[in-house]
Amino acid sequence: MPEAAALPRAVGLLGGGVIGGGWAARFMLNGVDVALFDPDPEAERKVREMLDLGREALSSLVLAPLPPEGRLTVVRSPQEAAEGADFVQESAPERLDVKRSLLAAADTAAAPSTVIASSTSGLLPTRLAEGLARPERFCVGHPFNPVYLLPLVEVVGGAATSPETISRAAATYEAVGMHPLPLRHEIDGFVADRLLEALWREALWLVADGVATVAEVDDAIRYGAGLRWAAMGTFLTYRIAGGEAGMRHFMAQFGPALQWPWSKLTDVPELTDELVERMAEQSDQQAGGQSLRELEQVRDRCLVAVLQGLRSQAYGAGTTVAAYERRLLSRTHALAADPDGVAIAQDGTTSGVPLVVHRTRIPAAWIDYNGHVHESRYLQMFGDATDALLHRLGVDSTYLDSGHSFYTVETRLGFRRALTAGDVVEVRLQVLGADEKRIHAWLELVCGGEVAATAEHLYLHVDTTSQKAVPALPAVAGRVRTLAESHAGMGWPAGAGRAIADRTPWYRERAAT
Amino acid sequence: MPEAAALPRAVGLLGGGVIGGGWAARFMLNGVDVALFDPDPEAERKVREMLDLGREALSSLVLAPLPPEGRLTVVRSPQEAAEGADFVQESAPERLDVKRSLLAAADTAAAPSTVIASSTSGLLPTRLAEGLARPERFCVGHPFNPVYLLPLVEVVGGAATSPETISRAAATYEAVGMHPLPLRHEIDGFVADRLLEALWREALWLVADGVATVAEVDDAIRYGAGLRWAAMGTFLTYRIAGGEAGMRHFMAQFGPALQWPWSKLTDVPELTDELVERMAEQSDQQAGGQSLRELEQVRDRCLVAVLQGLRSQAYGAGTTVAAYERRLLSRTHALAADPDGVAIAQDGTTSGVPLVVHRTRIPAAWIDYNGHVHESRYLQMFGDATDALLHRLGVDSTYLDSGHSFYTVETRLGFRRALTAGDVVEVRLQVLGADEKRIHAWLELVCGGEVAATAEHLYLHVDTTSQKAVPALPAVAGRVRTLAESHAGMGWPAGAGRAIADRTPWYRERAAT
Repeated sequence: MPEAAALPRAVGLLGGGVIGGGWAARFMLNGVDVALFDPDPEAERKVREMLDLGREALSSLVLAPLPPEGRLTVVRSPQEAAEGADFVQESAPERLDVKRSLLAAADTAAAPSTVIASSTSGLLPTRLAEGLARPERFCVGHPFNPVYLLPLVEVVGGAATSPETISRAAATYEAVGMHPLPLRHEIDGFVADRLLEALWREALWLVADGVATVAEVDDAIRYGAGLRWAAMGTFLTYRIAGGEAGMRHFMAQFGPALQWPWSKLTDVPELTDELVERMAEQSDQQAGGQSLRELEQVRDRCLVAVLQGLRSQAYGAGTTVAAYERRLLSRTHALAADPDGVAIAQDGTTSGVPLVVHRTRIPAAWIDYNGHVHESRYLQMFGDATDALLHRLGVDSTYLDSGHSFYTVETRLGFRRALTAGDVVEVRLQVLGADEKRIHAWLELVCGGEVAATAEHLYLHVDTTSQKAVPALPAVAGRVRTLAESHAGMGWPAGAGRAIADRTPWYRERAAT
Repeated sequence: MPEAAALPRAVGLLGGGVIGGGWAARFMLNGVDVALFDPDPEAERKVREMLDLGREALSSLVLAPLPPEGRLTVVRSPQEAAEGADFVQESAPERLDVKRSLLAAADTAAAPSTVIASSTSGLLPTRLAEGLARPERFCVGHPFNPVYLLPLVEVVGGAATSPETISRAAATYEAVGMHPLPLRHEIDGFVADRLLEALWREALWLVADGVATVAEVDDAIRYGAGLRWAAMGTFLTYRIAGGEAGMRHFMAQFGPALQWPWSKLTDVPELTDELVERMAEQSDQQAGGQSLRELEQVRDRCLVAVLQGLRSQAYGAGTTVAAYERRLLSRTHALAADPDGVAIAQDGTTSGVPLVVHRTRIPAAWIDYNGHVHESRYLQMFGDATDALLHRLGVDSTYLDSGHSFYTVETRLGFRRALTAGDVVEVRLQVLGADEKRIHAWLELVCGGEVAATAEHLYLHVDTTSQKAVPALPAVAGRVRTLAESHAGMGWPAGAGRAIADRTPWYRERAAT
C-alpha cells in the first residue's frame, strides 16, 4: 500500500487516558486530525499535556522536520468520534462490556471502509467483536506506553477479521513511525504482555516475600538484561550465550534449570527433541546466517550505543559508565598532573613546545557512511581540547558561576587525513597570541605522529550575563599571559593566519568589485 | 574503601567459558593480571577472542584511555590460579559438585585475605560454601553476559559470609566499572534470574504452543518494553503508567488482571492492602520526590537516547526510527522538490538567492553544561547542509560507488548567537566560486530571521580510491557550473574570504618575522 494511502487524514479516538492520549500525540504529531471521545472532563487537558511531552520527545528523536500538527477536537459521543474518521482506535479500560459498547457505537457511525482497532492489552479480538455489524474491519492494535515514542504495536485479528484489515492497520501504524507485529494466533495477553506479565508476577512475589524492594527489582533489570533487551530479545541473546555451539547447546546446558525452583513459574513445557529442534531451526532462521562472532559484535555495538545514550542522560547504567570514565580519567590526569595548572608540557619543559591538552580514541559511533569520522567530530575533539585548556587556565565551575567564560567566536579547520574507529589521537595546542580579552590558538590533531587536522581558534572572554566582551579576571588573565609568553618563542605554524580565499582566484576577482 | 585498594593487582579465574572469559576481559582491560584455570585445551584461544571483543567494546564505550592491559597466564590447577591472587572468581558450569570442588581447592591455596566469589546464576551461597575452611570470605558475584560490558553483578552472601567480604567484593566490581547490587536474602535464582527465568519459561510456552516463533517473541520485547527496561525497571515504569494517581492506582486498575490467564504463571501473590501499601511506599521512595511529569520526561529522554543509539547501529528499533525519518524527509523533500536537481530556491526563483539546503530543530541532547548548543553541533548542521547540497548536485550512492566524492578540506566558522533546545533553524547556502575540482561556499545558519552562525567551506572533488583531487564527472560538473552561475550575480557576503588573523595584531607582527 502506498504511503499516502496509509497515513489517515483523520482518526477517531475512544478514550483519552495514558494510552489514548499517547495515540492522540502520535497521530497529531504526524499531521493527522484527531476527534477524541472521553467522558472525563479533564481529558482535553491531559491529552494536551501528553502532546507536549510527545512533541518534545519525537522532535528530538528524528532529525527530519515533523509535519504541521493535526488538530484535536473533543467530541461528545463515540459516534461523533467515528464519523468522518479514516481510522478508529479504542483505548478504554480493560473491561469487556465498556469496550464492546464503544466499539459497537463506532461501528454504526464509521464509514464502511474505516478500520476499527482496540488497544486492549490482552482481551481476545473475537470476543471484543461479538455484536459488531462489521467484525471483518475490526482488529486489535496493542501499543506500549509511551505510545508516541515506542515503536511496537501488536496487530491481532479475531475469527471474523479480514486479512485486508490487518494489512491496512499495519500500514497505518507504520506510516506514523511504528513497528507493527502481526500475530497469527489470538491468545489471552497476546505475546508481549504474556512475557511482561510473567516477569511482573515474579517481581510481585519478590516484593511480597520480602526478598527485594521495588527499587532493587528494577535495578536487577536496568543494569543488566534490560540493556540487552533494548536491542535483542531473549532467544537471540541466549543463542549467543550458548557460545560456539549455539541454541542446541544452550538448551542442553540450561534445559535442566527449567526444573529448578528459579521462578514461581514451575509449570514448564517439556523439552522434547521436537521442541528443541523447532527452536534451533527458528533460531537459525532468525540469525540469518550471521556467525556467532558477528552476532556478538552487533550485540556489543548496540550495548555500547545504548549505554552511551544513557550516559548522555546521566541515568541508570549511564551513571555507572560515567563514574567509571571519571575514575579512568582521574588515573590518567594523575599521571599528567600539572601542579600550577598551566603550561607544563608532556616532556616537563614549560615553554617552547605545544601543550598536549586532550587525548582520545575514535569510537565506532563516529564513523559515517563513507567509513570516515564525520567532520563535526573533529570539531568535537578540538572543542574538548578547548575545554581542557580553559580548565588549565582556571576557568572552572566557580569561574563560570561568577558569570564569566571564554566563547569561541571563530574557528578555521583544515582536514588533512581521514581517521577511523580505534585511532588514538591527541590534540596539541600553541597560543599564537593573546590580550586581556582574546586568545588566538593553533591546534593540531595528531594521529600516529601525523597531523590529521588543524584548527585555528579565536576565543573571546565574555560577561555571560550581558553577553559582552570584557577582560578576563586577574587570576585567569595571569595564566593566559604566562602561557602566551611561554609560547612566544615558537615559530609561526605553516597555514596559521590564512584565509580560505587565499587558495581561490574568485575572491580577488569578486571582492575587488 | 579507597579506589587503589579496591582494584586488585591479580585475580584467579576458575573457568574460562562465556562468563569466565568475560571476567578475564573485564579484569585485564582494567590492568589486572589474570591467572586462569580451565580444563578445556581451547580455553586460552577462546579467552583471547573474548578479550578482543571486550577491547573493542570497552574502548569505544568510554572516552577515557584504558590502562595498559593485564597479563593472561593459563595455569594447570585451581590452586595455582588462587595462589598470589587478591581475588578469585569461579565461573564453572552450574553443577554443585563441580563448583564445590573448585572453590575448596581455591580456598586451600589462596591467602586468607583473598575474597573468593562464584558466578553462579542461582545456586545458594550457603550450599556452595559447605566444606570450605573459610566460608566467611566466600560470596556470590553473579554477572551478566557480556561480562566486560554489562554493569550488573548481584552480590549475595551465604549464612557464614562476613559483611566485610560483601563490601570488598562490591568495591572490587565497582573498581572495574560494574554496578554491584548487594542482595539481603539468598534465594534460588537470586533476583535478576528469577525475573529472566519467568520471562524465559513463558517464552518457551509461546514457542511450544506454536503461538509465535522465536523471532516474533524477541521482536515483542525489543521494539517495545525492552527499550524501557534499558533505563527503568517494571515498577517505576508501571508507576508512570498509573498516570497522575501513581502506584496505588495502577495496582487498583491492573490488579484484577493478575487473576486472568495472561501468563502461565498463575500462582500469584494475594494483593492484600498491606502488600499494596508496601509497594506504594517503596515506589514513593524509589521516585525520590520526582513528579509524574519529571519521571515521564526522564523516561522519554532515555528512550530517545536509546533509540538514537540503536539507529546509529541500524539495528532493531533503530531501523524503525531510521525508516520513519526517511519517510519524513521524503515528504519534506517532495515539498521542496527541484525537478532539475539544482538551484531552485524556496521562493521558486532560480538565481540570485541562497539555496535553503537544510532545516532542523535543535534537540535537547545537543545542549552543553552552559545551556548552549555545543560548537561541534553547528558543524554537524553545516555538514548536513553539505550532504543535502551534494545530493542536489547528483552526488548520490551511485556516484559514491563509482569512487568519486567531494571532501571538505577547509572550513571557517563564525559564531554569532547561542542556540537552545527547540530552536528551529535553516541553513542557506551561496556558492562563492567553483571550478572543475573545487566548490567554495558560504553558509548561514538562520534562526528566527537572525544569522546565528556562518561557515565558509572549501570542497575538493576526489577520486576516493587514489585519494587524489580529480575533476568532477560531467553530469555533476554541469550542475555545479549551473549553480555557480546562478549565484554569480549575488553580492559578496560580509565576512566571507577573511582570515581569523585579520582581526588580531599579532599575526602581522609575528608572521612578518
